[in-house]
Amino acid sequence: VTDAPFDAATAVRPHDDGRTFDVTIDPAWTIGPDKPNGGYLLALLGRAAVAAVRAAGGEQPFVVAANVQYVRSPSVGDAVIEVDVARIGRTASQATVQLRQDGAVCVQALCTLGRLEGGADPWWGSSAPPDVAPEDACARPFAMAPATVPTIRQRVSVLFDPSVGFTTGEPSGTGELKGWLRFADGRDPDPLSLLLFCDAFPPATFDVVRTGWVPTLNLTVYVRAVPAPGPLRMRFRAGIIAGGFADEVCEIWDSADRLVAQSTQLTALRLPPPA
Amino acid sequence: VTDAPFDAATAVRPHDDGRTFDVTIDPAWTIGPDKPNGGYLLALLGRAAVAAVRAAGGEQPFVVAANVQYVRSPSVGDAVIEVDVARIGRTASQATVQLRQDGAVCVQALCTLGRLEGGADPWWGSSAPPDVAPEDACARPFAMAPATVPTIRQRVSVLFDPSVGFTTGEPSGTGELKGWLRFADGRDPDPLSLLLFCDAFPPATFDVVRTGWVPTLNLTVYVRAVPAPGPLRMRFRAGIIAGGFADEVCEIWDSADRLVAQSTQLTALRLPPPA
Repeated sequence: VTDAPFDAATAVRPHDDGRTFDVTIDPAWTIGPDKPNGGYLLALLGRAAVAAVRAAGGEQPFVVAANVQYVRSPSVGDAVIEVDVARIGRTASQATVQLRQDGAVCVQALCTLGRLEGGADPWWGSSAPPDVAPEDACARPFAMAPATVPTIRQRVSVLFDPSVGFTTGEPSGTGELKGWLRFADGRDPDPLSLLLFCDAFPPATFDVVRTGWVPTLNLTVYVRAVPAPGPLRMRFRAGIIAGGFADEVCEIWDSADRLVAQSTQLTALRLPPPA
Repeated sequence: VTDAPFDAATAVRPHDDGRTFDVTIDPAWTIGPDKPNGGYLLALLGRAAVAAVRAAGGEQPFVVAANVQYVRSPSVGDAVIEVDVARIGRTASQATVQLRQDGAVCVQALCTLGRLEGGADPWWGSSAPPDVAPEDACARPFAMAPATVPTIRQRVSVLFDPSVGFTTGEPSGTGELKGWLRFADGRDPDPLSLLLFCDAFPPATFDVVRTGWVPTLNLTVYVRAVPAPGPLRMRFRAGIIAGGFADEVCEIWDSADRLVAQSTQLTALRLPPPA
């Protein structure tokens, strides 16, 4: 834990029971007026899960798998997180986590905790990072009027490769975004922050079809390794768009070319009427 | 709901509150002595979620996304499922589901319910089914002594393409299984049964390295369409094996070549000591 904004914004204040936490949802991590970013909320829940598992005697310091449902968007300000530790295990520990505001469930998650390594190559399997142009040749996600830029863009720097069509307004049709990710303040990534980074960019479906907002119904993140210091590269791909739903897969690599996080999400998509 | 064994084995008997269900875990769907198959348990939870959402006024008949944590293996016999409906929505409804036995949580899930179509091609994106040899040229997963064949193999027919190395005892090293799936009694697949089928075969990592049992820490299933009648084809691939964890991705296609289900799971893997 550092004194960087991410650490302050994800602070959890435990009650005596070790499983209830007061939190303050920070207005600097929103994607719209009073609409906190989903990855930021998941990082908050993950930090509470880690604290509750430690309080229950668990020895796993990292969230290695998280599933999350966004039920209703909380407002910025005070909220309460409750963690139910289902099992403290030797390899992994398991918990359910709910964030409530005014008594209503806003976000709920299943968290699996484990240990993670840094550095070493995988024992088997490989996933090479995408070719991404240098950061100074990349573009911000949208050419937006300053007043409409989400506040989270001041905290998380997202830069897209020039090949990503819709940075200039038009979907390219490939359904693939790729680029760089880092904290704007230079804080290095850690396993907890990968929960944030997996949900820190616009929908990959925006590179297929421009729609209204695309709500995430279900998000799963696996954290696979402790990231090396430095910027992250990501690839975010739309899968199948059918029946009002789309799946999207994200992968993140660290500066040592190691795959450090994977995510998949199911989103609801309201298509424009046929032309 | 038919009178086939799958429907009987996933029956849920509601209490008056509409959210608590008595169930009987059927010994015919196990993968070891008194060890129910994880996909079967997820189908049980899914059926309870559908019943509870309907009782709460929701109009979505299918589980379209499910995340599940296996906390401790329940025994066959009586158990109780409790569903908390978090939100009844227009497009989707959301619920948490827990299966308990003797008061202890055994399985817990997040379920998202929606409507699904059959038949039509995706609006965008494609995923072609793998080349699989005809069923009569495929092999059962293991050459096992009859007494050790899991009971679920009498309910769910899994046939692997001849290219899958470890059907004959040796991993091929590709980490990919592909083959046919169907109910042994000829019942056609429906959306609920896809929750079963996504976790109905041996670990894909067995095609990389023979280990002891590979526990699923976290499983996510997306159901994308109502499957057409007839057998299903599946592909199950290991991703990265690192730090004691492996990810595995499964896809299932119906007889009309449509991708009907996707799953991803994180498993714990204890590797053999280096030779």
